[in-house]
Amino acid sequence: MTATSTQIQLVNRPVGWPTADDFRTVTVEYGDLAPGQVRVVNEFVSVDPYMRGRMIDTRSYIPPFALDATMTGGAVGRVVETTVDELPVGTLVSHQYGWRDVVQEDADGFRALPEPPANAASSVYLGVLGMTGLTAYVGLLTIARMQPGDTVFISGAAGAVGTAAGQIAQLKGAKRVIGSAGTPEKVALLTERYGYDAAFDYKDDRSIREQLRDAAPDGIDVYFDNVGGEHLEAALDSFNDGGRAALCGAIAQYNSTTRTPGPSNMANIITRGLTLTGFTIGHYFDQAPAFRGEMGQWFADGKVVHDETVVDGIENSVDAFLGLMRGENVGKMVVRTGS
Amino acid sequence: MTATSTQIQLVNRPVGWPTADDFRTVTVEYGDLAPGQVRVVNEFVSVDPYMRGRMIDTRSYIPPFALDATMTGGAVGRVVETTVDELPVGTLVSHQYGWRDVVQEDADGFRALPEPPANAASSVYLGVLGMTGLTAYVGLLTIARMQPGDTVFISGAAGAVGTAAGQIAQLKGAKRVIGSAGTPEKVALLTERYGYDAAFDYKDDRSIREQLRDAAPDGIDVYFDNVGGEHLEAALDSFNDGGRAALCGAIAQYNSTTRTPGPSNMANIITRGLTLTGFTIGHYFDQAPAFRGEMGQWFADGKVVHDETVVDGIENSVDAFLGLMRGENVGKMVVRTGS
Repeated sequence: MTATSTQIQLVNRPVGWPTADDFRTVTVEYGDLAPGQVRVVNEFVSVDPYMRGRMIDTRSYIPPFALDATMTGGAVGRVVETTVDELPVGTLVSHQYGWRDVVQEDADGFRALPEPPANAASSVYLGVLGMTGLTAYVGLLTIARMQPGDTVFISGAAGAVGTAAGQIAQLKGAKRVIGSAGTPEKVALLTERYGYDAAFDYKDDRSIREQLRDAAPDGIDVYFDNVGGEHLEAALDSFNDGGRAALCGAIAQYNSTTRTPGPSNMANIITRGLTLTGFTIGHYFDQAPAFRGEMGQWFADGKVVHDETVVDGIENSVDAFLGLMRGENVGKMVVRTGS
Repeated sequence: MTATSTQIQLVNRPVGWPTADDFRTVTVEYGDLAPGQVRVVNEFVSVDPYMRGRMIDTRSYIPPFALDATMTGGAVGRVVETTVDELPVGTLVSHQYGWRDVVQEDADGFRALPEPPANAASSVYLGVLGMTGLTAYVGLLTIARMQPGDTVFISGAAGAVGTAAGQIAQLKGAKRVIGSAGTPEKVALLTERYGYDAAFDYKDDRSIREQLRDAAPDGIDVYFDNVGGEHLEAALDSFNDGGRAALCGAIAQYNSTTRTPGPSNMANIITRGLTLTGFTIGHYFDQAPAFRGEMGQWFADGKVVHDETVVDGIENSVDAFLGLMRGENVGKMVVRTGS
C-alpha cells in the first residue's frame, strides 16, 4: 500500500535568526514496504534547541543537516504497516525520523516503547521520560555531581530540560534550587509549579549577577547552564569553592552572528577550584536504564510534573522551532502531527 | 642570643604592575628564643606568580598579605638555635616564612627535610621536589587526568611549573608534549632540555591559535594552563572530544587593570564534551607522599632536569619577583639569602 508523507527540508544554512525561507515543505510518496521495513505514523515530533547547531556546516558532535533533504530529530509514532515480527502493527515507537508525519524505513531505526502512563500522551517520551529528561538527569547528577545539601542554579529553567532538572534537584535533596527564565509568567511557574525555591527574570533591568546574588546569598554549588553568556559569568561570581557547572546549552548564542566573548571572571575557576564540564547527551546513553527506572517511578508516583507546549500540524513545525528559539514555550515544545 | 633579620613588607596594594615603591625593607631584631621556638637562617626563599594575587584585597583561597607586615611564602633554611628536640641545630627545614633571611617562630611552623640529593642545592625543595613540582604533578595527573597516549599542551612551559609538567608528561607516557614560551631562547630550551616534542613563541607574529594547530595537527587531549587569555582560547579550538584542561595560573591577567573577556569559543566546551578544572595546590597536599616518592626517584635517577634562576640577596627579593612577573626566569625563580 502506498502512503503520502509531509516532510520539512532545510534549503539554506541560516545566518543569524532562521526564517521560514530557510525551509520548505515537500510531499513524499512511499511505495509498498520492502522486506525489513516498517511504516510509522508519527504522533509527535520534537523541536529542540540543539537543532539550530545542525543547520550550519561546522565541526560538531553530530553532522549538519544536509541541504535539500528532510531534517531528522526525535519523534514518537505508531507502526501502521510492518514486515517484521518484532514491531507489529500498533506498536508505539521512538525514533529519529522527525520533521515528517509518516516514515517508512528499516525496522532497525525504531525502538518499541511501552504505552505511556495513564496521565500522559506519548509525547512524554520526547519530554520528561525521554531525551530531555535524560539530559537533565545526567547533567545534574553525573556531570555536575550534585550532592544532597547543594544549592543549585539552573538557567533557562522554564524550558524542557530546566523544568525537569529543577524537579530532579529537589527529589535528590538539594538545599535550595534557583531558576532563571525570560518572562514574569515563567518565573512564577518556576516556584509555583516546578518546585524552585527562588526564581528571577533574566530580562529584568537588574543584572543577572545581582539577581543571582540575592537569590543565593550563601552562594551556589552547582550550575546547570542552558543559556551561556552573562548567565555563566554570574554563576562564576556566585560559586562556592569546589563548585561544578554542567554546560548543556548556550541558547543566548545560537543565533548570534558575532563571536561572543566569554566570561570576564574566568580566574574564579582557579581561585575557587571550580569545574566546568560540557556534555551532549549522546555520550551518556549508558545511563538511560537507571534514568528510566528512577524517573519512571517518580512520574508514576506523581512526583514529577511534565508540561509541554503543543503546536498542531506537521506543516507548522518550522513555526514551532522558531517559537522555541524565541522562548515561547513552557516545558517541552512538540509538534502534534495528528492527521 | 639576639639576631637581626632583613624582611620585605608590602606597603601599598599595587594597581597594575607592582613597582618597588609598593614594598619596603625593614630590619627586625629578635631577642632570646621563647620556649618552643626555633631560629632559622634561610638559604633560599621563593617568589611565585600566585603572590601577585595576595597583594590585592579580594576574596580568594588565601588571605591577602597584610599591609605594613612582612610577606610570607615558601622558604628553606637551617635551624641555628633551638628549644625543641625535634628540630636540632643544623636541621634543614621548609616553611612559609619567606621574604626574610632570618626567622624565629614556634617550631610547629617548620617541617624537617632530608639533605638534598648530591646534585642539588636545598632550593630543589622549592622547585621540582617541592610545591612547584607537586603543582605540576597534581595538575597533570589528578586535575587533567592525563593518560598514556595523550597529546598534552602546556603554556608558560619554561617556567617552574611548566618545565616540571612537561617532563612528567613524558615520563607518564604522553604521545606528544607541546609547550609555549615567551622568548626564542626559552622555546629552544623546551625541546632541547625539557623533553618537549614541539614548542612555539607566543609573542610571535603568528597567532597562538595558528601555532598550536601547526604543533598539534591531530588536536590536543590535555591542556595545562599557566597563562590564561588567548592561550585558553587557542586550546579550546584545538581540543579533541573529551579533552581536559587544568587551569593553574593566568599570569597574562595578573597585572591587568581591566576585566579581560574570556574565550569567545566557550561553546566548544559543550560540543566537544570538554572539562575545565581550576585548582590551587593547597587542597591537594594529600598527594604529596605519592609525589615525593615518584618524583624523588625520577630525580635521583637523573630522569628529571631541575633548573632555576637565582637572584642573590634578600634585599633583591622584590626585583626577583618583578623579574618573574616579566618572565625573566627559566625554571624556578628563587632568592639566595646567603649572608
